[in-house]
Amino acid sequence: MPFLLPAPWRLIPGGITAPQGFEAAGITAGLKASGNPDLALLLAPAGAVCAGTFTTSLVRAACVDLCAERLRASGGRARAVVTNSGQANACTGARGLADSLSATAALASRLGLTPDEVLICSTGVIGVPIPMDTLMAGFEPLVAALAGDQAAGDAAARAILTTDLVDKHIALEAELGGRRVRIGGMAKGSGMIHPDMATMLGYLSCDAGVPAETWQAMVSRAVDRSFNAITVDGDTSTNDTFLAFAAGEPFNPEHLDALEAGLTAVSQHLARAIARDGEGATCLLEVQVQGAATDADARAIARTICGSSLVKCAVHGRDPNWGRIVAAAGRAGVPIDPAAVALWLGPHQLMAAGQPMAVDRAAASQYLRAAAEAAYLGGPAPAGDMIQIRLVVGAGPGAGLAWGCDLSDQYVRINADYTT
Amino acid sequence: MPFLLPAPWRLIPGGITAPQGFEAAGITAGLKASGNPDLALLLAPAGAVCAGTFTTSLVRAACVDLCAERLRASGGRARAVVTNSGQANACTGARGLADSLSATAALASRLGLTPDEVLICSTGVIGVPIPMDTLMAGFEPLVAALAGDQAAGDAAARAILTTDLVDKHIALEAELGGRRVRIGGMAKGSGMIHPDMATMLGYLSCDAGVPAETWQAMVSRAVDRSFNAITVDGDTSTNDTFLAFAAGEPFNPEHLDALEAGLTAVSQHLARAIARDGEGATCLLEVQVQGAATDADARAIARTICGSSLVKCAVHGRDPNWGRIVAAAGRAGVPIDPAAVALWLGPHQLMAAGQPMAVDRAAASQYLRAAAEAAYLGGPAPAGDMIQIRLVVGAGPGAGLAWGCDLSDQYVRINADYTT
Repeated sequence: MPFLLPAPWRLIPGGITAPQGFEAAGITAGLKASGNPDLALLLAPAGAVCAGTFTTSLVRAACVDLCAERLRASGGRARAVVTNSGQANACTGARGLADSLSATAALASRLGLTPDEVLICSTGVIGVPIPMDTLMAGFEPLVAALAGDQAAGDAAARAILTTDLVDKHIALEAELGGRRVRIGGMAKGSGMIHPDMATMLGYLSCDAGVPAETWQAMVSRAVDRSFNAITVDGDTSTNDTFLAFAAGEPFNPEHLDALEAGLTAVSQHLARAIARDGEGATCLLEVQVQGAATDADARAIARTICGSSLVKCAVHGRDPNWGRIVAAAGRAGVPIDPAAVALWLGPHQLMAAGQPMAVDRAAASQYLRAAAEAAYLGGPAPAGDMIQIRLVVGAGPGAGLAWGCDLSDQYVRINADYTT
Repeated sequence: MPFLLPAPWRLIPGGITAPQGFEAAGITAGLKASGNPDLALLLAPAGAVCAGTFTTSLVRAACVDLCAERLRASGGRARAVVTNSGQANACTGARGLADSLSATAALASRLGLTPDEVLICSTGVIGVPIPMDTLMAGFEPLVAALAGDQAAGDAAARAILTTDLVDKHIALEAELGGRRVRIGGMAKGSGMIHPDMATMLGYLSCDAGVPAETWQAMVSRAVDRSFNAITVDGDTSTNDTFLAFAAGEPFNPEHLDALEAGLTAVSQHLARAIARDGEGATCLLEVQVQGAATDADARAIARTICGSSLVKCAVHGRDPNWGRIVAAAGRAGVPIDPAAVALWLGPHQLMAAGQPMAVDRAAASQYLRAAAEAAYLGGPAPAGDMIQIRLVVGAGPGAGLAWGCDLSDQYVRINADYTT
């Protein structure tokens, strides 16, 4: 089943710079030994509000502390975010914060902003400080490259990557209340993945003016239904950050639900793209849970199934191993009714009323092979296919989704063979 | 560092039948297609109390419900437990409970006990009922094989296995208050591991008479420090059960702490043996956490580190990748002080005050290789070696241990290549 966009949203070209007034840049500053692009900037129009969600890890990088504190102090206002890729600036002590402060101060000065209006995200190796001379020298060409066109957005989307195999961006557009609204997004991440690489960063832009508190609430709900619903290997990074900017003519509050649907669709696309790009992954997995007591319970069950090493191995082997799915649901820590459990792999029902059905396992296995082969491979189009597991756990109203990927021997080799 | 037995306990030959008055049997009843032993019985002396701990999964087998209910109703009294290996009798609906009831009734009749005094544990494929004719036909030779010698204990320890590579048993002895006390144990499990194999079963025998409530409290604490402190792949089974029998002359309450130390040592030995036998594992890993607010917090952190796929891959690659260890600690869900973190791999300190130290990575990697090579390989002797990680997370009084194993490509292949 391909991804469906919620009406009236439609896909448009471009990414983070598609919304009116947003500019971006991505350059190679020399922070990465590989020589790949490594410095990105996103600039929002005057008056922008910014909502942020951050890693819940207690070991978090200085830049995460700085972003969270600046958004708190300003009541959710910011104009720009710079991303340096190569060094995570986590576990770097007092120096980490000092470097984040001086970097944002220098960049603010070039942009004609106050330091408090500039945020910084770092991604890369944990425990390694940013080479500050290189970073500072990169700000002049970075600011010079700022533009509002698709090429600038593409360059930014590439420059935030670390070990990702594909860049991840999308833009949607809709007419809401007689005006055109656009939402763009870009992200990096493939799980807490490559050795010491601090993981997920996501950015979103929107050209509708929404009050900061309303926007933060909308973004938090969208993140719950997207980035908080994916798992690659269960590990959480020191640097995970999602920043969503909104700036434009005041938006008619009557259409906020439709706006949130677009915001959620962009976030879910980026989240799925991260899951699909999980290290060693060969397919994208979606788990739908229905009949739980609450939506939060359903999401917890879906996420536990997506995160189960045994389920992930079975998916990798294209094995319709229903016992592992039900066992994972049983340990999710939320109530389920074992006697009511029903399970589908794509169109194939494997369980009813808590017991296995007589089922054509060859056909179910063939479904897994075909769905994996057809599955989404990245890129901006929210089309494609994936392996779908649907589980009913009772008669409650709660429903939820989670996304993940298979666990391959390639994952182990990538994460074991590297020598620090 | 080898395992240390708490004084005055010493290792003695034998396993579950070492304590006075306990008998066991293990036979091949034909429940497994492989033709391996598949039916085991443990018989405790008259007056025995029995403490049980069970899987917290909501999807649990009928036999688990039956054991829990019988121990609740009797106030912790039971005389025998039969284990059938091959079919887990989970997700088998009403028939599962009926089969458990009729099996224990038939066996009780042969043993001259009431059905309520007999418990049953099942392990094997989920969703498959026990072939009852085969099981019932096995009870006559099973009871005939009952004996109190070491051979009978060994036979029982083999008959409870499913995909385990080695059998797991131990016996300890001590003089406490002028009398000799013995504790024996056996277990099966190698993680929620082989396709649909319901996992961990453990049994303990002790020839000291302890009141049922006291015994249950002691056993629950010992399980928290052993079976609840291991992780192979984070998955929890439908059938996990630990049953501990105590029967003998009333024990002097003054020496209960020493008795509990022996009980904990036996449980920890069996738990480590399960972790070491994790599918595809090449070594045993111990994580010690100190400086947490409470012991429970410390155990939670230790368990999160042991369960991290990235840490497990790094251990498999013998890579002293401290960033992954600290990142896992940060997401354990309990308070830590990032600025106080200190980390050791064996004798090599890698972090101090939250920051990486200049360290000889080659030497740390060499430690990992040597410790893994020397590591414990199963069998009854609580000696041998393992990879040790020690993490200080603050200045609190809480300390805790967890055990696990590495994550190898072999784990993935075993769990992906199987086709149901």
